Amino acid sequence: MAKEITNRSENYSQWYNDIVRKAQLAEHSAVRGCMVIKPTGFAIWEKMQSQLDKMFKETGHINAYFPLFIPKSFLSKEAEHVEGFAKECAVVTHHRLMNNPDGPGVVVDPSAKLEEELIVRPTSETIIWNTYKDWIKSYRDLPILINQWANVVRWEMRTRPFLRTAEFLWQEGHTAHSTKAEAIEEAQKMHEVYARFAEDYMAMPVIKGAKSANERFAGALETYTIEALMQDGKALQAGTSHFLGQNFAKAFDVKYLDNNNKEQFVWATSWGVSTRLIGALVMTHSDDEGLVLPPKLAPLQVVIVPIPKPNGEIMEHAERIAAQLKEKGISVKIDTDKKNRPGFKFAEYEMKGVPVRLGIGKRDIENNQIEVARRDTKTKENVSMDGIAEHVANLLDDMQRGLFEKALAHRNEHITPVDNYDQFKEVLENKGGFISAHWDGTTETELKIKDDTKATLRCIPDDEEGEGTCIVTGKPSKQRVIFAKAY
Amino acid sequence: MAKEITNRSENYSQWYNDIVRKAQLAEHSAVRGCMVIKPTGFAIWEKMQSQLDKMFKETGHINAYFPLFIPKSFLSKEAEHVEGFAKECAVVTHHRLMNNPDGPGVVVDPSAKLEEELIVRPTSETIIWNTYKDWIKSYRDLPILINQWANVVRWEMRTRPFLRTAEFLWQEGHTAHSTKAEAIEEAQKMHEVYARFAEDYMAMPVIKGAKSANERFAGALETYTIEALMQDGKALQAGTSHFLGQNFAKAFDVKYLDNNNKEQFVWATSWGVSTRLIGALVMTHSDDEGLVLPPKLAPLQVVIVPIPKPNGEIMEHAERIAAQLKEKGISVKIDTDKKNRPGFKFAEYEMKGVPVRLGIGKRDIENNQIEVARRDTKTKENVSMDGIAEHVANLLDDMQRGLFEKALAHRNEHITPVDNYDQFKEVLENKGGFISAHWDGTTETELKIKDDTKATLRCIPDDEEGEGTCIVTGKPSKQRVIFAKAY
Repeated sequence: MAKEITNRSENYSQWYNDIVRKAQLAEHSAVRGCMVIKPTGFAIWEKMQSQLDKMFKETGHINAYFPLFIPKSFLSKEAEHVEGFAKECAVVTHHRLMNNPDGPGVVVDPSAKLEEELIVRPTSETIIWNTYKDWIKSYRDLPILINQWANVVRWEMRTRPFLRTAEFLWQEGHTAHSTKAEAIEEAQKMHEVYARFAEDYMAMPVIKGAKSANERFAGALETYTIEALMQDGKALQAGTSHFLGQNFAKAFDVKYLDNNNKEQFVWATSWGVSTRLIGALVMTHSDDEGLVLPPKLAPLQVVIVPIPKPNGEIMEHAERIAAQLKEKGISVKIDTDKKNRPGFKFAEYEMKGVPVRLGIGKRDIENNQIEVARRDTKTKENVSMDGIAEHVANLLDDMQRGLFEKALAHRNEHITPVDNYDQFKEVLENKGGFISAHWDGTTETELKIKDDTKATLRCIPDDEEGEGTCIVTGKPSKQRVIFAKAY
Repeated sequence: MAKEITNRSENYSQWYNDIVRKAQLAEHSAVRGCMVIKPTGFAIWEKMQSQLDKMFKETGHINAYFPLFIPKSFLSKEAEHVEGFAKECAVVTHHRLMNNPDGPGVVVDPSAKLEEELIVRPTSETIIWNTYKDWIKSYRDLPILINQWANVVRWEMRTRPFLRTAEFLWQEGHTAHSTKAEAIEEAQKMHEVYARFAEDYMAMPVIKGAKSANERFAGALETYTIEALMQDGKALQAGTSHFLGQNFAKAFDVKYLDNNNKEQFVWATSWGVSTRLIGALVMTHSDDEGLVLPPKLAPLQVVIVPIPKPNGEIMEHAERIAAQLKEKGISVKIDTDKKNRPGFKFAEYEMKGVPVRLGIGKRDIENNQIEVARRDTKTKENVSMDGIAEHVANLLDDMQRGLFEKALAHRNEHITPVDNYDQFKEVLENKGGFISAHWDGTTETELKIKDDTKATLRCIPDDEEGEGTCIVTGKPSKQRVIFAKAY
């Protein structure tokens, strides 16, 4: 099977598409730009959801659900917001079909035209702040710390599975606060939660920072982002958390009485990650043989393959070992298929990214040992059957750590500081990756760089210090910022 | 607070709306017919989801995700299906807004008209069977056992929170099989799973049976249903599982090669339950003081109220007891509010349906006891602090059982066998509930009864035996069937 995957060095983009298809993560649907998330892909999303949901609840958030549709007039209430989303909206105009009077099939019933068109939510700030208006009267009603798991639609013209699709799944947190400081603290806290999730669960190192004004979310005063680097040297924005100021409170007239009985506008944040993370996960770890998954997000962590085929004695050992692994909270499957040969199965599980493969044959049983193959390094070793569960548990921890370290080393090798524009262009062209450069802080310069080179300003990193001069204009710069070509 | 709830005896419908509003389960949104599911309501849905998802996976199903949109032409491919859904569809016709050339705001961009309109899924058989076409080649690809958690839209003209809304959340299972027998077995298995969930988790007794041809899902050969009885004597269809025969396989040309290398059409099922179950839960158990929840689905099972206020010594005991309860897997919250008085808090927790309330005051500590109040019976008792966790765990089990038994007794008292049409009308008018009657099996008679009385044929129960004669036509009847007025 693996032969059907294009090598990364040959065509990275095709390699990605091959992995998504061959590991059965997703496929195009009959609806333009919308994907079908197949069971294997969805199982990864379930693992992500479950962990993120836990982290959101641990930080005091609760879930709720708001309507799929947004009245058209709501979008217009926040000027920048409508500017950002109006051009890629799915618009519902009618609520009924009728038999085609002129032939077979059904047509839109012209008498069922909506008075006001409805937009399929591209994001939910407007409908949620219209709701919060009724929920918030006094400072005692604050903060509101709500998250929603939902589907959203943005009518993108060029789509790729997970990375950019017309419909995608995500979570969107929407919080309301009585003070500016508290709202900023919230936005930063969730920024931190996203970074922790990316690094500790996805094993994907990220640079934490703020977006430039030009790259901010439509309606935000500040957008915090986590930026990851893919194996081809392109950046991927993996999660954003927005400090929205009082923009939406003003647009929807949401005020509270403070403890001096004075009316104040409410402060807001929103934050989200999406099924895009599955694309990021694929592109961070996978190789020319297929998917590589960090054990913490692998729907299946261990597969046991009886060699050459499942039979009585081998199955007894396999089942005993499976029970020991389950005891330790490790997910495991025994391959009981009798049709395919071990070599075929090995390639298949490599393709699907199962972290650990255990092979048991007759001779292994005689020797009281088992063959342990790890997906990430593709190394094998014979391990005593005694204490095998302990061994595998440690191995999974090792792999989780190892994948992060490998990705971190790659990422660090690809953060290149440059001190002039020629160098910037040269690195971008030949090495790729993140480029760390001084910038004068203007949108004008940022856009010039984008026009010249297609590199965008990924973020103004949190942990950079030291002044300098802009590589383009020579004007003063407060700190180095990160540029890259991006997904 | 409780005073603000209308009594059931006065106006059952208003009572339901009051509970939904005062217990903060849901509210109307700015979008016609769409509700906002508030955190308390959503937490109940999360409990339901989590248990159902477990039961689906235990029966071999996996989750996936299919597009929100369905091309209009897909709907027309199965004749009955389009007939059933065409009249209540949200139709997407455009993919862009533009600035209003004649004034403020945005308008639909006429140049962004879709070539083919998209329907927001009212159910996903068509888009899924169009996808299965590519997944199924041989008998080796079968069965496919997939479930999807999703939002769907049916443009209902008269809506009520949870019971009937334009958008609702649900799960829809869509399975594909090589034989008719296997598909029927699957549909019946999920019917059984739904009945088990309703009775063991919702504490809501249900009658299991098949729908009449007239009440079947649009496109099904057989619809299995679970029917529950609400406190006002009206029935509520709580979950359906459909044997779809080869209708969708034929509509979308989905064939497989059997093991004789012969092409066969694939057999299908689909099955779903929705956020409607939250409405059913409310109407099965709640009372004039507010929500009553079965402990297995209560987001919060126990609240500890320090009396009169949280202070050092009382809080120490409260925290110790909370830790003991958590140890047993019981969810618990200590009320640390210092503003409101215990009486106010008691009414509030009754309203919200927290199953068990523990009160601890100074004297209780001196007596090494704690006041235990149960929500369902509104009884209180003083219990020794030693072994309190054990006591509460048993109490929760008792309540779960007690709620089911109470609902079962009410339901059984309201299944009335009748032997002629006058009696049928008299019982329907004065007693309500399920009416068990002989019926000649024709849609004509079924519709006559509906026109005459507004009662619908709820189901042909699985466990009824004995022939008779139809109460309307006097023609032969194979068994008694169940009629009722329904939500």
